[in-house]
Parts: sequence; C-alpha cells; structure tokens
Amino acid sequence: MAWTRKDLVSMQDIEATEIGEVLDTAESMKEIATREIKKVPTLRGKTVVNLFYEASTRTRTSFEIAGKWLSADVINFSASGSSAEKGESFLDTARNIEAMSPDVVVVRHKAAGGPALLARHLRCSVINAGDGAHEHPTQALLDLLTIREKKGHLEGLNVTIVGDITHSRVARSNIYAMRRMGMTVTVAGPPTLIPPACQELGVKVSHRLQHERMTGGFIPSLREYSRVWGLGLDRLQHCRPDVLIMHPGPVNRGIEISPEVADSQYSVILDQVTNGVAVRMAVLYLLAGGKAA
Amino acid sequence: MAWTRKDLVSMQDIEATEIGEVLDTAESMKEIATREIKKVPTLRGKTVVNLFYEASTRTRTSFEIAGKWLSADVINFSASGSSAEKGESFLDTARNIEAMSPDVVVVRHKAAGGPALLARHLRCSVINAGDGAHEHPTQALLDLLTIREKKGHLEGLNVTIVGDITHSRVARSNIYAMRRMGMTVTVAGPPTLIPPACQELGVKVSHRLQHERMTGGFIPSLREYSRVWGLGLDRLQHCRPDVLIMHPGPVNRGIEISPEVADSQYSVILDQVTNGVAVRMAVLYLLAGGKAA
Amino acid sequence: MAWTRKDLVSMQDIEATEIGEVLDTAESMKEIATREIKKVPTLRGKTVVNLFYEASTRTRTSFEIAGKWLSADVINFSASGSSAEKGESFLDTARNIEAMSPDVVVVRHKAAGGPALLARHLRCSVINAGDGAHEHPTQALLDLLTIREKKGHLEGLNVTIVGDITHSRVARSNIYAMRRMGMTVTVAGPPTLIPPACQELGVKVSHRLQHERMTGGFIPSLREYSRVWGLGLDRLQHCRPDVLIMHPGPVNRGIEISPEVADSQYSVILDQVTNGVAVRMAVLYLLAGGKAA
Repeated sequence: MAWTRKDLVSMQDIEATEIGEVLDTAESMKEIATREIKKVPTLRGKTVVNLFYEASTRTRTSFEIAGKWLSADVINFSASGSSAEKGESFLDTARNIEAMSPDVVVVRHKAAGGPALLARHLRCSVINAGDGAHEHPTQALLDLLTIREKKGHLEGLNVTIVGDITHSRVARSNIYAMRRMGMTVTVAGPPTLIPPACQELGVKVSHRLQHERMTGGFIPSLREYSRVWGLGLDRLQHCRPDVLIMHPGPVNRGIEISPEVADSQYSVILDQVTNGVAVRMAVLYLLAGGKAA
Repeated sequence: MAWTRKDLVSMQDIEATEIGEVLDTAESMKEIATREIKKVPTLRGKTVVNLFYEASTRTRTSFEIAGKWLSADVINFSASGSSAEKGESFLDTARNIEAMSPDVVVVRHKAAGGPALLARHLRCSVINAGDGAHEHPTQALLDLLTIREKKGHLEGLNVTIVGDITHSRVARSNIYAMRRMGMTVTVAGPPTLIPPACQELGVKVSHRLQHERMTGGFIPSLREYSRVWGLGLDRLQHCRPDVLIMHPGPVNRGIEISPEVADSQYSVILDQVTNGVAVRMAVLYLLAGGKAA
Repeated sequence: MAWTRKDLVSMQDIEATEIGEVLDTAESMKEIATREIKKVPTLRGKTVVNLFYEASTRTRTSFEIAGKWLSADVINFSASGSSAEKGESFLDTARNIEAMSPDVVVVRHKAAGGPALLARHLRCSVINAGDGAHEHPTQALLDLLTIREKKGHLEGLNVTIVGDITHSRVARSNIYAMRRMGMTVTVAGPPTLIPPACQELGVKVSHRLQHERMTGGFIPSLREYSRVWGLGLDRLQHCRPDVLIMHPGPVNRGIEISPEVADSQYSVILDQVTNGVAVRMAVLYLLAGGKAA
C-alpha cells in the first residue's frame, strides 16, 4: 500500500502512486453505490467530524454520505453558533474536538493553511475540504477519477482550466495533481485572474481570447465575462469530439457555461458528483481504516 | 400490493386503495415505537435526503426519526448556506443530490410544484413534505390514520376544516384525501380565505359565523380572527360528544384554538404527531423498500 | 444500583452515591473511546433528541458522540427555524417531540427552570444541558470525574472557582456537587459577580484581590478584569505544585486565563472535554439503558 500519510491537506507534494491508490480504492468503493444495500462495515466504530467554517452543504453532504456508507459515525460541527463565535481560537476549537476522540476531522476554512495547521497539531487525521483560495484536494481527486474512468488513462491528456484561476482552490489542487499524473494543463481566463506564478507550475497560459475585448485586463461585468469566457455551444465546436466538460459546481448557468453545454453529451458534471462520494469514501478508508487492513 | 408509485407528491390523484395501503402499513409501523428496541433493519443501506428549502424542524425531525428507526442513512440538506444560495438552480441542486445516489429525497419548498418538478426529473423517489400553499400529503395521511384509529373507519364521517383554507397545503391535501375516502368535508373561515374553487372539489362551504361580524370580508386583527373563528370551549359544546379536535401544529394557543380545547379529552393533536412518524415510516418503506418485498 | 431517577436536571438534591455511580459508569465508558472500534450496542433502538434553544455546538457534539457510540439514534432539534419561532410554546414543542417517542430529551434553554419544567411534564427522560444561569449538571459531573481521575479521590480537596459566579451555571452545579462530595469550595471574583447567598451553600468567599483595585465594585473593562482576576503564571506560583487548572470552555485566552497557564502541565482542560463524552455516555446509559440492565 502506497498510502502512509496521516492527513490529506494538499496535492502539492503528493506522489503519483498515492493518487493511483486513492483512485483504485475509489473505483472499488463506487461499486457500493450500485448495490441494493449501500453499506459496508469498514469504518464501523470510527468517528468522522465535519468541521465546516464555511457553509458548503454539498461537500459536507458528500463526506457525510461517504462516512455513513462506510458505517462511520458522522458528526456535523458547523462553526456558526459554536464556541468559535464566543472568542475561542480555531486551534482551541479543533483541540476540543480532538479531545472527543474522532478518527478523522474534515475541515473547511476560509483561511488558506487552516487544515495544514490542524494536521500539524492534531493526532487524528485531517482532510482539507477546501481552505480559502488555497486547495481542495478531494475535488482534484474526483476530477481525476472522472477523467480516468472516461478516458481509461491520465498520462498525456490535455486539460484546459477556464476562468478565475487566482482565486480557485479547485484549479490549484488540480494543477498539482494533473501535472503529477503527466497531464498537460493550460489555464485560460482574464489576465487579472491568472496568477503570475502559473508557469512555474508547468502550466501553459492561454490569453487567446484576450484580444477580442479584454484590453483593459479586467472584467466590467458578469455579462462581459460570460460573453468572452463563457463556454457555449459555439466554442464547443472547436473542441475534440471526445472532449469532456467538467465543472466543480455549483453551476451558474449562463455565466461560466451555457445550459446547452452543461446538459450536453460531453458534460460529465454529474459523474463528478457521483465520483465525489467514492473518492471521499476512499480517502476516509485510507486514513481511518487502512491501519486495520 | 396497491402501491406502485415512484413518488408521493400529491393526494389529488391518489386512489383509495393506495391510501388504505399506507394506513395499514403505518399501523404495523406504529407498533415499532412501542418496543424496547425501536429499530428494524428494513431500510438498512438505503439513503434518505431531507432537502428542506423552508425551515421546519418538526417535519424534518419526524422524517429523520422515521428513517432512522428503519435503519436508513438520513442526511439533512438545508438550503440555507448551500449551493442554492450561490446561484445554483433548484433542479441542478436536486440533480446533484441525485448523483450521490439517494433512494428517497424528501423535499419541502416554498414554491408550489417544486416536488412535482423533482419527481419528473429524478430517478429516485420524491416525497413532498410541503410545497407552498399547494399540498402536504403525509400530513393528510397522518390525519386519516388518526381518524381511522379513533373512529374505526373513514367513510361517511363529517369533517369541518376551520381557518385559512386558501393558503393551507394541509387543507388542500386533506380535502383530496378525505373526499377520496368517502368523507364529507366542510370548510369554514373568513370568506377572503376560502378559495372560490372549493365547491368543485365536492366541499361544502360554511359562512355561518360570517354574519356576526365579518361584513367587510377581511380580518382586521388576530384578536378579531380569534373572536370569530377561534375554537373555544363554548363552540365545542355545539359539537358531537365524540368529536375529534385536530391541528397540524404548531398551535398558536389562544388564536385558532383555546388552551382548554387543545388540552381537552377531544384533542388528538399529539396522536397526530405520533402517527406522523408511523405514516412517514410507511411511505419511506413503500417507496424505498417495497421493491425488495 | 443507586440510580433510580427519570431525569438529570439539577445537582442540588443529588446524593453522593448517585454521583459515585455516574462517575464509576463514566470510567468504564471512557475505555470505549480507546478501542479500535468505538461502539457498543448498549442503546441500540433508543432515541435521543438534542433540543437546543441556545447555540452550543460543543456540548451538543459531546452528547451526539456519546449517544452514537452507544448506538442510539441521535436527532438534533435546534430551536432556530423551528415551530418555536412560529409562536408555539416551549412546552408544546417539547410535548410534540415527546409524541415522537424519544427515550431521552437533552435540553439547553436560556431560561432557568426550562429542563425542570419538561422533566415534570414529559414521560421520557430529560437531561439539563444548561439552563440560563441556573445549572449545568453534566459539566459538574465531568469536572468531578476529571478531579477524581487525577487525585484518586474527592473528599477533603480544596477547590477555588474564580470569575463571574452569579451568572455561571457551571459554578452553581459544581458548588452543589462538590459540597456533596465533601470538598471545600471557595469562590473568588468581583464582588458584584458573587451571589450573596453563596455562604448559605457552605462556600467560602474570597475577596482577597478586591482591595487592589476593585473599590468601585464593578469591572470597567475586560482588560481590567483580566488584570485583576485573570490567571497567569505569576498567580500560578502561589498554588500548590499539584494544582489542577480547569476551565469549562470556551477559553478566552488572555482574559480569564493566560495562554501559558491554559497550556501548562497543570491544565486538565482537554481532559475535561474527553471526560465530557464519557460522563454523557454514563448519564444516557443510566437514564435510558438502566432499565434493561
């Protein structure tokens, strides 16, 4: 088994063999969702705490379902209305939760580095479920699972990530993971929203569409953004016939992507959601159940 | 088995045999609540998502308890703080949830027709837990269960529904269901709050109390409403000695109903709550577990 | 078995043998948290409802974990967004919950006496999880468990409770419980925040620090409070070398207690949190599972 980490907080230093193990595990987890009885006793007697400082019903639900299908006890601890509001520090709240003996803490925080801080200080496993504009590792893993499932492999594939790259933790985690798996990554978007350091990560930058209109280098309005960067059927025609259209959700139809594209045969957006549960089952298993295996 | 529907969204087109099957099933479910161990493995490995766009802790709790006693995994997905607030459409949110492979989605929405929309588009079962001023089918079913339990039968019984009928999803579902079971339904309330189409549904309209005071056809205040339409001990004296007093809750004591009536021997308000869990167990079972039976 | 109560609402009239039984039971429960599989079937088929009228994610989580490790079904019923907001009375809400057949209702309420009211009116067991400035019995029990664990006994020990005693439900429950166990209790704090009736409870009052600055008998600011009553390393030097520093959380570092003291070798703050789960398991077991034993 390649997986020996206590935590999953970043894709930056993760090995290709580790990613491979998560994806292989997720594939076998995925089969559980197709059963009449979607439940295995793998994590029975393990406790997973969802510690969410940012509202995210979707991601929290995905982790909650993943935990429950593995028979873990899942506790939702939202920061609103909690001791965090009474002046307690983030680390003190986390240490309090740790004192209740969870096996895994899944943490979403608006501050980049929050999950890494917990991972250093807590003995239990920590999963980063999104920290500010930093990383969102399980989203990258579910994206890779979806691509591998549809294409049969990852190495050598070309991926273009379109939009606000600077503020996207999804983009950042995907860039690390996809580069590690030997994929070619291009980012495209308004120049103001492409981080200067992109090329250091081995990523190509495309400003192809820039000259049409974006001379000022900023986005005057959502309508403007949509006209220049939105993905509609017209732009889809320039893609390969076997292109995959992905989106981490929630989809703002008509802004980043047109309804016709979101619902097209190329769209794998809902496959991503399905694979999200499988990937989170895999990660929970590798972190909390692996020792027993 | 009469039940072959994928969903329960309305009482409008439901058959008497279907209602009968829910009530019979609920009766046997009700026995579980009296056991030392309130738990059966019937829906083990099934996933129920409570998708609530309107706050309703009581109804959500009733469904949650019903699901858990049947050993289902129950996930609460409240719309506040969710992707719904980030611009995602109702149907996209629901499709995302569906992609996580639930067996049943229980939906409450402020818009009439929301649950019907989901029922058409989702492969999983959909239960309407209240949609705007439209319907609230499980409330009607638990009302029928309560009446049948107390009276031994339904056919031929006289029911008077008092209050704001126009905006009441409980009244609407009950009118459909009670008419289907051969009951005589009379509605009574301020004329402004009785829908004109009532008589087309085979419902009698009583404005008996109207002439006392309601000449303007509107309610100047809650105190005024209470004086004219509130159910106190004085009015209870005109009822049959075996009358049942029902209320879907929450009870505003002193407005619609006096404390003396709410706590009287005629009141079956808490029986309704108890039967709510049983009816929801029955519906969950018929939708999610019936295939295996 | 000493425990025959239906409810746990106050430490005022509880017997030393009852406290002893909770602590002994908690000690054996605590061992479960150290297992590979943290789960026993003791309360399988029992239903615990957390009825919280005040936000308290930490205490609610502690009860939720306690219930789940015992295999109970745990339902979180928060008052916000519930029927309580629609004009329903506290007792009606509670009776509604009771009608859903829970075995235990854990209630937190801002009004002193709320849990006692429910205990009188509900057939199911009621646990006070904090009511206004009145009591917080499980906090006192977990404090006693922590002290007994560290000291080997309770009788004859000296405890000083520092701070706002008047508004502290934790202080009040602890004073009752500690006096019952033969401990000597001293309270210290700004005179305005020490209840006059303290001495009737057999508690010593220390105003030692008062004369330094508190001539006005009030606290001009948090900074002022911290300077006079905050526990820093300097004051710790006057304590015995085997002193235990305790805090019910959440800790406002730098106000009541300095970071150096909170993290010192004398601090058992996180032990308290760990013992909180064990004590709540014990109480849930004694109330809901004891009959079967």
